[in-house]
Amino acid sequence: MKVEIITIGNELTSGEIIDTNSAYMASELNSHGFEVTFITTVGDQEFYIETALQQAQEHADVIIVAGGLGPTADDVTVSAAAQAFGRHLIINKEVLQQLRERFAQRGMEMPLANEKQAFFPAQAEIIPNPMGTANGFILRHKGLSFIFLPGVPKELQYLFKERVIPFLIKERAGKEEKEFWRVRTLKVFGLTESAIADRLHDLNLADYSAALAYLPRFPENHVKITVRGKSAEETERKLFELEKLIRGKLAGRVFATDEETLEQIVGQMLRKNKATLAVAESCTGGLIAHRLTQIPGSSDYFERGIVAYSNQAKIEILKVPANIINKNGAVSAPVAEKMAAGVREISKATLGLAVTGIAGPTGGSAEKPVGTVFIALAAPEGVVSRKYNLTGDRDQIKTLSAQIALDWVRRYFLNLLSGLTR
Amino acid sequence: MKVEIITIGNELTSGEIIDTNSAYMASELNSHGFEVTFITTVGDQEFYIETALQQAQEHADVIIVAGGLGPTADDVTVSAAAQAFGRHLIINKEVLQQLRERFAQRGMEMPLANEKQAFFPAQAEIIPNPMGTANGFILRHKGLSFIFLPGVPKELQYLFKERVIPFLIKERAGKEEKEFWRVRTLKVFGLTESAIADRLHDLNLADYSAALAYLPRFPENHVKITVRGKSAEETERKLFELEKLIRGKLAGRVFATDEETLEQIVGQMLRKNKATLAVAESCTGGLIAHRLTQIPGSSDYFERGIVAYSNQAKIEILKVPANIINKNGAVSAPVAEKMAAGVREISKATLGLAVTGIAGPTGGSAEKPVGTVFIALAAPEGVVSRKYNLTGDRDQIKTLSAQIALDWVRRYFLNLLSGLTR
Repeated sequence: MKVEIITIGNELTSGEIIDTNSAYMASELNSHGFEVTFITTVGDQEFYIETALQQAQEHADVIIVAGGLGPTADDVTVSAAAQAFGRHLIINKEVLQQLRERFAQRGMEMPLANEKQAFFPAQAEIIPNPMGTANGFILRHKGLSFIFLPGVPKELQYLFKERVIPFLIKERAGKEEKEFWRVRTLKVFGLTESAIADRLHDLNLADYSAALAYLPRFPENHVKITVRGKSAEETERKLFELEKLIRGKLAGRVFATDEETLEQIVGQMLRKNKATLAVAESCTGGLIAHRLTQIPGSSDYFERGIVAYSNQAKIEILKVPANIINKNGAVSAPVAEKMAAGVREISKATLGLAVTGIAGPTGGSAEKPVGTVFIALAAPEGVVSRKYNLTGDRDQIKTLSAQIALDWVRRYFLNLLSGLTR
Repeated sequence: MKVEIITIGNELTSGEIIDTNSAYMASELNSHGFEVTFITTVGDQEFYIETALQQAQEHADVIIVAGGLGPTADDVTVSAAAQAFGRHLIINKEVLQQLRERFAQRGMEMPLANEKQAFFPAQAEIIPNPMGTANGFILRHKGLSFIFLPGVPKELQYLFKERVIPFLIKERAGKEEKEFWRVRTLKVFGLTESAIADRLHDLNLADYSAALAYLPRFPENHVKITVRGKSAEETERKLFELEKLIRGKLAGRVFATDEETLEQIVGQMLRKNKATLAVAESCTGGLIAHRLTQIPGSSDYFERGIVAYSNQAKIEILKVPANIINKNGAVSAPVAEKMAAGVREISKATLGLAVTGIAGPTGGSAEKPVGTVFIALAAPEGVVSRKYNLTGDRDQIKTLSAQIALDWVRRYFLNLLSGLTR
């Protein structure tokens, strides 16, 4: 069953607010197995709303319309709908009575403007809204269903979950054979989108009734696997096999699944290995510590972070010898290693992780251009470091450096970090 | 001139990500005086993209299409466009050469998949993308302009600002009477949306041909002022007067204008006052240091940050006496003040800023529930601290705490911080 979403409001076409209603509804529809074909947004102009309602008839079975049901003059969805389907506007006395009672309960007389909210196109089925004065409604037209909802996100979400989804499931039951599907997202770091595509090129997706989508989420690349089947078991088995195949082809580059984040995975590994972590940051400026501490309970394994922005901080707190900084510069392998070893020593943590680099836009030189970053890890087995030549603006270089550093900890626990064997 | 936006991607119609590109473009178009008629979103299916391109011809002069220009099989915007306008796909050898060079610069061979990104519909004008492999392009068809852009937000925003807006302004110049308008966004922290609306309630906006929009951007609230006029001078003068009036009514709560950020303003103030800053963070976990170091050149005034997550770190590095922690708990005014004074002393910075609190979801108690946060500032004039009872999830409490702490530094320099007079 194909569903189209239409959202209405000048605040959307002017870009003043982001249309979260569409994403909410699309996500709910998707996770219940409905295909969303088009999402259309128009302002509060009757002509555009009518046009959108007419267009939608060409490409969907059910059209969900959100917004423009309020009491003020700029709410014109109801009259546009009446116009589009050639129906009269009729007052619903029951609704009018309920609106009056609603105000009476708060000791108020109903403003005249709200009377408008008791008018609906002929033959509308009302969807009562317990949270506000804008009731939803359903119109049937040429075998299609048009569902109108208020645009206030809380009210929309409530009605969507409680009334719209059950309605759609019931409609589908009468029309279609049931189809099973499962979705999994694999999160990849360290391979470009096209490198992933090259590695997965020879998969025979048809064998699994599967589709792959590539979603770049800087600095990560996500691969979304959708598998369809005739039973829950078949679908589950196909997904399991295909996922295994894909993980094999991407070697150790898949770091997380679905909603998991890299900092979550790193935290789980530290916890599982009864290890603690301390971080010494220069160019990432606290971003690694910030990400690690986004995870509830991270105080169990994250001991401390030092943002050693000045050389003085590197010398005083991290015990990096001044002559090593003088000889090699603050952005160098020896300094990165001393920072990692230093933060590990002062904190008595199992692992010390360090980053020093040039995030730019200034501070680069011919020998060490912007994007030169050294990462080091100090572990019970020793200290390793590596130089990276990153590209991008300041924010991108910080983001990439933090991601590489966190990924080092993951790779260390999996024995994938070259030069350091557990 | 009427503009339509089409965004493309299965991740949009599935609700996996929120379509921020549409809102960004709509807002930019609006603030340059262009009317956005429709915003349409479709998945990566050629048929739907073609349909959207055909529909758009009915209701706009310029159609901007974003997304689906990547190298993988699910990127089908280019072939859908060729189909919709009946044009052949032609390889652009110059673009191909540039793509190859791009990879060569990184010591990589170009994956075969990327060759696809050198194909464009016949007669396309290329919009070179210096930030990625997906170049934009313009197609002219039946007197309308179709502008295709990559969907990666950073790349899209860059090309939109640098290429699309100038293109549209030039197109309009030939067609319409010129209207003058100016836009300014005031960024507010420390007042709710309705508190701001209450304070601005009695402004006579019509006198200034002005409109206000309230844009909540957690943890900030933005007020967007749009002023229209018959000449550049008149518009400029009206905006100047209205802005002054609004700033007066919001007292010291406006911390930045337009693209400025709080960390940028704090950095400017530190620089102007030849002051340096060191930060001791507990519950914000590095977020304050991360925000400060987002600003190029911040190493001039940001000396160091200590993420003292463990009590041991507070005692050893920040010299917080153990008995003060034992007596008051780590989340307390005395500990916050010792942290601020400690980080100031060890770093010899002008200011020491500290945060200690309970970000949750665990760790709260009846006496100190989740959201209890103490902020302290140590300055040459003394040390002050204050307790906050914040609400929200872990991320929101971290975000709010970091924002309050940074705002303290701003208020200190403006002599608005109670208890500390410069």
